[in-house]
Amino acid sequence: MKIVLDVYGGDFSPYELVKGAVDAVSENTGFELVLFGNEKEIQSLLKQLEYNGNRITVINAPETITNDDIPTEAVRKKTNSSLVAAINYLNENSDAVGLVSAGSTGAVLTGSVLLLKRIKGVNRPALCPVLPTVTNKKVLLMDCGANVDPKPINLVQFAIMASAYSSCVLNIDNPKVALLSNGAEDKKGNSLNKETFPLLKKCNKINFIGNIEGRDILSGNADVVVCDGYSGNIALKSCEGTALTMFSMIKDGIYAGGIKTKLGYLLLKPVFKQIKNKMDYNDNGGAVLLGLEKIIVKSHGSSKSKAIKNSILQVKSLYDGKVIEKIENDIGK
Amino acid sequence: MKIVLDVYGGDFSPYELVKGAVDAVSENTGFELVLFGNEKEIQSLLKQLEYNGNRITVINAPETITNDDIPTEAVRKKTNSSLVAAINYLNENSDAVGLVSAGSTGAVLTGSVLLLKRIKGVNRPALCPVLPTVTNKKVLLMDCGANVDPKPINLVQFAIMASAYSSCVLNIDNPKVALLSNGAEDKKGNSLNKETFPLLKKCNKINFIGNIEGRDILSGNADVVVCDGYSGNIALKSCEGTALTMFSMIKDGIYAGGIKTKLGYLLLKPVFKQIKNKMDYNDNGGAVLLGLEKIIVKSHGSSKSKAIKNSILQVKSLYDGKVIEKIENDIGK
Repeated sequence: MKIVLDVYGGDFSPYELVKGAVDAVSENTGFELVLFGNEKEIQSLLKQLEYNGNRITVINAPETITNDDIPTEAVRKKTNSSLVAAINYLNENSDAVGLVSAGSTGAVLTGSVLLLKRIKGVNRPALCPVLPTVTNKKVLLMDCGANVDPKPINLVQFAIMASAYSSCVLNIDNPKVALLSNGAEDKKGNSLNKETFPLLKKCNKINFIGNIEGRDILSGNADVVVCDGYSGNIALKSCEGTALTMFSMIKDGIYAGGIKTKLGYLLLKPVFKQIKNKMDYNDNGGAVLLGLEKIIVKSHGSSKSKAIKNSILQVKSLYDGKVIEKIENDIGK
Repeated sequence: MKIVLDVYGGDFSPYELVKGAVDAVSENTGFELVLFGNEKEIQSLLKQLEYNGNRITVINAPETITNDDIPTEAVRKKTNSSLVAAINYLNENSDAVGLVSAGSTGAVLTGSVLLLKRIKGVNRPALCPVLPTVTNKKVLLMDCGANVDPKPINLVQFAIMASAYSSCVLNIDNPKVALLSNGAEDKKGNSLNKETFPLLKKCNKINFIGNIEGRDILSGNADVVVCDGYSGNIALKSCEGTALTMFSMIKDGIYAGGIKTKLGYLLLKPVFKQIKNKMDYNDNGGAVLLGLEKIIVKSHGSSKSKAIKNSILQVKSLYDGKVIEKIENDIGK
């Protein structure tokens, strides 16, 4: 089984991407990697990292897509970019099951949706990141940006797909699905929510628990939070932004407070580190684009080798967990 | 000039509300307060708080509206509730300029919008909380829940109204207005955003700086963030929820860490306190419902006396800053 890696995307490309690949094959067996990008450069990095196994193949695709490219144009024109070549490879090789990219989200979404087949019955694939909660459980927030103006039926499918992910990969039994809204009461929501609510309620493929507020996304009360891609993106980034704001306020306070607060910081360092790790995308894996016949993991643009390794292993978990088969079964039939 | 207070709303009613009223008149001059609720109980609390001035009047309105009431029904039927009586008083007395309530948001919004006059030209009043940022500036996020399905023209009016608040009360010169979206690029957004963007761009009453992501709401880059009430509510509560989650993680880490982390906590206590204060709604005042001829401040349900006092003084600041006149001038003409 093969997993493909777009080496020329993200802030720390290519070194951290190649290192992530090497670390992934060292840590886990049962898959091969196919790396796309500037072949010469990648081979030289593999040498530098003293990799001399036979589980990593490199395919030359020297063009790159940046955040400044318009996704649809880039996907159409830059066919020899590491991303498009990787997606085309996925399309043409049945033993290639998934892709990891830390490149432009727009290009990864557009390229995957345009070039790959959807799972039978799925109308709209959607982006599903894994977030930490105050408990030890994770929560899935879907959609986070792929569909800014979805219809109620799309949200029902998001719920089914994320539930499949939650049960097959995160091993949650009968995952609790909530609908993101501006209040927890049944009647809350905008027109999209109000139309979606009864459909979720009567869907027998999921365990729908009702509306949930933004305040409770990270509470652990739900295993899956369903929303349109516009609101989901805002919720996700509001959470991220607040976490960063608080870390920055703590840092400023420590600097301004003199020797006492600096000592306090040293003593509390393990606590801060633990929280940072919990909130850190490097540990939580990438966002999964669910709904296609291949597994697409969009790793954070600032991913270092650890995040890349985790995203590769995440593709393997999704494959081993038979998420696509589960979605096919729950939606396609 | 009179400010009215709905004493029977919020988790700490009536004591903290009455105490907030007494504290407000002690701290600031230039206004009188009219308190609505169970007159006997309020008078007895005023006595207990040793208030014997003549700036607080009490009007008996013994019914109460709770979060379980359906707002439209409650407003129509419970005419002798502290909230509805207070709003009616506002309507009938030209020297009564504004209301503070910590009661059900739905009832406060519904009651105010149904019973009070809108500023000439304003189509939809909207809710505007004041949020902290990493800098010392505040940011206004409007709308946060009054209009879940607004039209582009409503968002333009939200921008004008919040700009008026920012310049007249927070003394921001030419406040920077951003449109909340799922990316900072001009073309990002759902269909509502895409229609609103060009209207904001050509509006000469505001200083529009483009789209802003959820991540940057608290960055201080914008003075006003405009959005529909559904997304705004989700953004606001996602920020609140993450802040609470992080405090709870820090607390758990400290407890689990033994004597070292507990000592660290003691040394860092002033830093945590400062951050808590900065993030605290008790210090940031209530959310203002802008667009009506009277000033409505919805204080947090968990408001203690300090938050109530601040909300009362906030009404005074809005009155002194002539926000309603500014909105009338910018929208009505």
